[in-house]
Amino acid sequence: MTETLRRHHDAYPTRTGSNYMVLDRPGPVAWGTAADGPIDAQTLQGFESKGYLAIDQLVDPEELEVLRVELRRMSEDPSVRADERTIIEAKSQEVRSIFDVHRTSEVFKKIANDPRVVGRARQILGSEVYIHQSRVNFKPGFEGKEFSWHSDFETWHAEDGMPDPRAVSISISLTDNYTFNGPLMIMPGSHKKFISCGGETPEDNYKKSLIMQGAGTPDKETLTRFADEYGIDVLEGKAGGAVMFDSNCMHASNGNVSPYPRSNIFIVFNSVENTLVEPFGADQPRPDYIGVRDFTPAG
Amino acid sequence: MTETLRRHHDAYPTRTGSNYMVLDRPGPVAWGTAADGPIDAQTLQGFESKGYLAIDQLVDPEELEVLRVELRRMSEDPSVRADERTIIEAKSQEVRSIFDVHRTSEVFKKIANDPRVVGRARQILGSEVYIHQSRVNFKPGFEGKEFSWHSDFETWHAEDGMPDPRAVSISISLTDNYTFNGPLMIMPGSHKKFISCGGETPEDNYKKSLIMQGAGTPDKETLTRFADEYGIDVLEGKAGGAVMFDSNCMHASNGNVSPYPRSNIFIVFNSVENTLVEPFGADQPRPDYIGVRDFTPAG
Repeated sequence: MTETLRRHHDAYPTRTGSNYMVLDRPGPVAWGTAADGPIDAQTLQGFESKGYLAIDQLVDPEELEVLRVELRRMSEDPSVRADERTIIEAKSQEVRSIFDVHRTSEVFKKIANDPRVVGRARQILGSEVYIHQSRVNFKPGFEGKEFSWHSDFETWHAEDGMPDPRAVSISISLTDNYTFNGPLMIMPGSHKKFISCGGETPEDNYKKSLIMQGAGTPDKETLTRFADEYGIDVLEGKAGGAVMFDSNCMHASNGNVSPYPRSNIFIVFNSVENTLVEPFGADQPRPDYIGVRDFTPAG
Repeated sequence: MTETLRRHHDAYPTRTGSNYMVLDRPGPVAWGTAADGPIDAQTLQGFESKGYLAIDQLVDPEELEVLRVELRRMSEDPSVRADERTIIEAKSQEVRSIFDVHRTSEVFKKIANDPRVVGRARQILGSEVYIHQSRVNFKPGFEGKEFSWHSDFETWHAEDGMPDPRAVSISISLTDNYTFNGPLMIMPGSHKKFISCGGETPEDNYKKSLIMQGAGTPDKETLTRFADEYGIDVLEGKAGGAVMFDSNCMHASNGNVSPYPRSNIFIVFNSVENTLVEPFGADQPRPDYIGVRDFTPAG
């Protein structure tokens, strides 16, 4: 009975064991206006229609260096490497991601709460915002692995209990992004549709899905239709720049055989009017370091 | 004694068990002149300096369709799939490459001997040419695998006994090449240096190396230096177009998570003045369907 009711009120049903379906995503994408600043009207309009915006330079070279040094320090720190919040690639033994850095590192806490970052997130979401997730990501040269197409919101809804796609991610580049080193790819406009995924969530799915997506991955047929309709934008950009993208963007990245590694800081802001409830498609919420349940406003 | 003599006269020593080394590659790259046609002076000069040239449209849409139909026919033919000349991806059971197609398919024989193709090869190599290798390649969407950096000549020299890098490859695109579906990447100018590779050739190395390069792969340090010096060109282009590249170009391709597969016809022309001898870095030459020993001129 509870189950039936829950499904009934869910505008984004997914992993219900039924077929893949494409649903409209109701409501605005950009909730604020240009008057709220710092994002100008045209950029905000682009975010609404494409689902993302690019910032050529978010931090200056000195700040960038500080972030890089902190990244290196953490990835070499034995206690960080041993922490469950750190994802280590089995084969190479290299650090792939470190979660929760806005709470474990003063340097990353500072940038995650910086007005340039939080101000934009507030403007897009039209409210105070809090940090739903933070991490630093590494994609090594020569052997960097791909990440297949997915909507982050699909996972956050199913596994973390995020009610609506009123969340925005910022990826701050610590290295240059070329077309050839596995940059972020987005299907512009795809954020206005929600792909309800087949299958169900396996127990403790996050332990695998952080390495390689399984549950919550759309089917090939729907992805092909989406690519035909929306196209694929490849997001090049310099170190120190950033990309902000809607939580429901269909995105992916290829592997990286080039000698140039990629790394970034990834922070997810959620509206304080969209705080987490019980997961919509899993028995248990994921750990707090992946889907934060401290809703204190950032900034 | 024979061994010592052979090494002594080898301008391209590789897999000798010693360290990685960068050697100059003596001699011309483009042997003919613009007067020989059909390649114009500027394009030929670009080939000399960059090591490759692009042809926007080599075949017309009707010819392209004939090639595609033949590709599909062969990849679905059970006898072709069972043939040792066909490389099947273990996991997906999809065809990855079919070798020797200029001898097993009338359609591919025709294009491999077409004046538009052979004429350009003759002009670049400054002599009659013969086909050293032919194949069709498939890189599926969603799960296409990467190919790491290598010089084809290094392998043809070590494992097939090709004396000098007086050979040119043509890759005719049967699908569109985007930056995001794992296109050919070349380090322009790298063809003027030869990377002598460490290690030795394992027995029957070709059975593995056709799937994923191992022996003959340069070390990361040298590759990083090369990328810094030469840069990386990503070769986009439409179906029906082609790329011709020098046998000693450092090239690679990333994997492909996009929905769009990549396929091409790949034909290697060698100068009749550069026919094969005993392998320079292996005990046995590879099979004739990989390194052809019929030196009859093409065209």
